[in-house]
Amino acid sequence: MTAPRFGSLHNGPTPEQGAESFVELARTGSARVERIASRAVTNGEWYEQAWPEFVLLVAGSAALEFADGSMRDLNPGDWAFLPAHCRHRVNWTDPASETLWLAVHLPPG
Amino acid sequence: MTAPRFGSLHNGPTPEQGAESFVELARTGSARVERIASRAVTNGEWYEQAWPEFVLLVAGSAALEFADGSMRDLNPGDWAFLPAHCRHRVNWTDPASETLWLAVHLPPG
Repeated sequence: MTAPRFGSLHNGPTPEQGAESFVELARTGSARVERIASRAVTNGEWYEQAWPEFVLLVAGSAALEFADGSMRDLNPGDWAFLPAHCRHRVNWTDPASETLWLAVHLPPG
Repeated sequence: MTAPRFGSLHNGPTPEQGAESFVELARTGSARVERIASRAVTNGEWYEQAWPEFVLLVAGSAALEFADGSMRDLNPGDWAFLPAHCRHRVNWTDPASETLWLAVHLPPG
């Protein structure tokens, strides 16, 4: 199957206020690409994954929080590479507009 | 090593007119994430890769061309999933401003 597929990150489910929605866009081997939409999230769930993750903030704004208490603001075009076992969460996303992310779950190593 | 890394797609090399520049942002296993900047490309090189690729157009505009002659315009937020062996090239990118892509080379499957 070699036919390409297309889409827009601007199309997809809109989460409830304070919540996130996840849509898988592609998956091969142990890698997958996801669209994440976040709406006015505060103090999101903590994640500590056994695989690395690359996230790109495409629209809106957000801050990631890490286990040592450090925070990183993200604006459109900003990316973060989170190694395996890097404990993190979304501290907040834009209260006024939807925040869109492209997330890539990478192979363990 | 579990410290995160950060960056912005808006920072990076500016290619010559008609050319592209590639910067690797992350690599694990057989997957890698790249920033691609394109400046007024026309009739880019053909690619036919043994692995799938996911591309997101972040800024500017472009058209992808496929072996069957079909074309697909891409604007910011648009993505394409190109399966392994899907022959493609960049037919053109925005003549007036830099086009930025996030490209993910995925494991063969």
